[in-house]
Amino acid sequence: MRLVTYRRAGEVRHGRLTDDDRVVEFGDGDLEGYLDGRTGETGRLEVAVADVELLAPLLRPGKLLAAAANYQDHVTESGAEPLDKTRLSPRLFLKPSTSIVGPDATIPLPAVSSEVDWEAELAVVIGRRVRDIAEADALDAVAGYMTSNDVSARSVDYGFPRDTDDKMVWFFDWLAGKWLDGFAPLGPWLVTADEVPDPQALSVHLDVNGVTKQTGSTKDMIFSVAELVAHASRLMTLEPGDVILTGTPSGVGAATGEFLKAGDVMTVVVGPLGQLRNTVA
Amino acid sequence: MRLVTYRRAGEVRHGRLTDDDRVVEFGDGDLEGYLDGRTGETGRLEVAVADVELLAPLLRPGKLLAAAANYQDHVTESGAEPLDKTRLSPRLFLKPSTSIVGPDATIPLPAVSSEVDWEAELAVVIGRRVRDIAEADALDAVAGYMTSNDVSARSVDYGFPRDTDDKMVWFFDWLAGKWLDGFAPLGPWLVTADEVPDPQALSVHLDVNGVTKQTGSTKDMIFSVAELVAHASRLMTLEPGDVILTGTPSGVGAATGEFLKAGDVMTVVVGPLGQLRNTVA
Repeated sequence: MRLVTYRRAGEVRHGRLTDDDRVVEFGDGDLEGYLDGRTGETGRLEVAVADVELLAPLLRPGKLLAAAANYQDHVTESGAEPLDKTRLSPRLFLKPSTSIVGPDATIPLPAVSSEVDWEAELAVVIGRRVRDIAEADALDAVAGYMTSNDVSARSVDYGFPRDTDDKMVWFFDWLAGKWLDGFAPLGPWLVTADEVPDPQALSVHLDVNGVTKQTGSTKDMIFSVAELVAHASRLMTLEPGDVILTGTPSGVGAATGEFLKAGDVMTVVVGPLGQLRNTVA
Repeated sequence: MRLVTYRRAGEVRHGRLTDDDRVVEFGDGDLEGYLDGRTGETGRLEVAVADVELLAPLLRPGKLLAAAANYQDHVTESGAEPLDKTRLSPRLFLKPSTSIVGPDATIPLPAVSSEVDWEAELAVVIGRRVRDIAEADALDAVAGYMTSNDVSARSVDYGFPRDTDDKMVWFFDWLAGKWLDGFAPLGPWLVTADEVPDPQALSVHLDVNGVTKQTGSTKDMIFSVAELVAHASRLMTLEPGDVILTGTPSGVGAATGEFLKAGDVMTVVVGPLGQLRNTVA
């Protein structure tokens, strides 16, 4: 199933997309209502997808986690040594819900950075409440998958001199660069896990204005989806609707010094999860 | 006004606390409903506070931000040089909503750390949607204040050897140590900003089992509440119900190697904002 959140008649609703481009409405609000069992298919209302505005499938998840440095080729293009997985744990960070935007939404270039970059990623959506789940069981907690883009400001400039070589200054700048409004495009829909038999066998593509920048595969993740979910659940309770971005392969702009400018169009496609297109302004 | 979120008859509600310990109910859900203007005083229902269970005033804010290293005496007790504010920006990080618990809630000691520590803090609650707000106007965006505790695991141990001296490993461990379930006690209520004429003149007290550990004042913050709010709003849109923890003064356990153990009771009091008491288990 392809599950969608959309605006119809001015209100946020969610439902299921049919093969003939109609939406079967489940209820009010975003898909969290369906994921935690409050809504479901009633068959009472169907509308043409052309008559609704698709939004991010999850608009305000309990948490939006993301994995840093989860593909070796991205680690090495950033100038670092390859990571030794046997002595490493996943490197997670949080993005705020105000960073979430949907398909076709415009992403504003922030005043505080001139180095805004793309990161095509597979997004995982949690389907049930879990804590300390074993890696072998972790995929059972996944409701589905989405195409996503972990848009990132590679530097921030607040207009006065700071020691950005200082490791702590650098790190807090790095975090802040992940948080800007619109820096987490998600969608266009959530594909349920039953239709994604192997989340480690999905192509990851991103182009800017039609020029391919990233072509990877989720088979090259350092930590698999199951490992990321299991790890996160050792730190905190995961809840229906929580989202985990799983890291990006090589081909980001920072590796060659190319950054986004007004008018650029990013198009991300992850496996069969649909195309996520956003313009920068 | 003291605003409260509570459980009554099995459901989450919010309202106002009266001087004679009654609750005037405003509506369903937590205080975000009041802060964004969906509910207000109707006078229809009053109950004794003894008949409800007080919860954290905000249960699932859009974001829970926190400031690191925002009191010089805490910076230096951690072994670092004093910070030069003229060349520094606030150091913000995010905590997940699953870390939020209310007054009298029990905080579970996590399996992944034996170094769990306290951090008494003033919490700021945002009252309106703002972006790029000037420092001079920032306090106008504050709905009120709460007592809070930024509980922190000073190290995490996943059961296999890692190079925790590596700066990146250290930093992602530091972040993860802020995220565990129950690591953001908030409450017992939200005191509206009109009753806190100067947020930089509040005492900050924390004791463990009755032994005083932290006695500070918000006058010693490196970045004031107004500066923190203005800075955060340069990075992202702040929304009603968003929470910002403003950093802790000296006296944390890590400075002397004392960490929390099962049965310990932390009591935090910030100015006139009420006492926040939590047991560790």
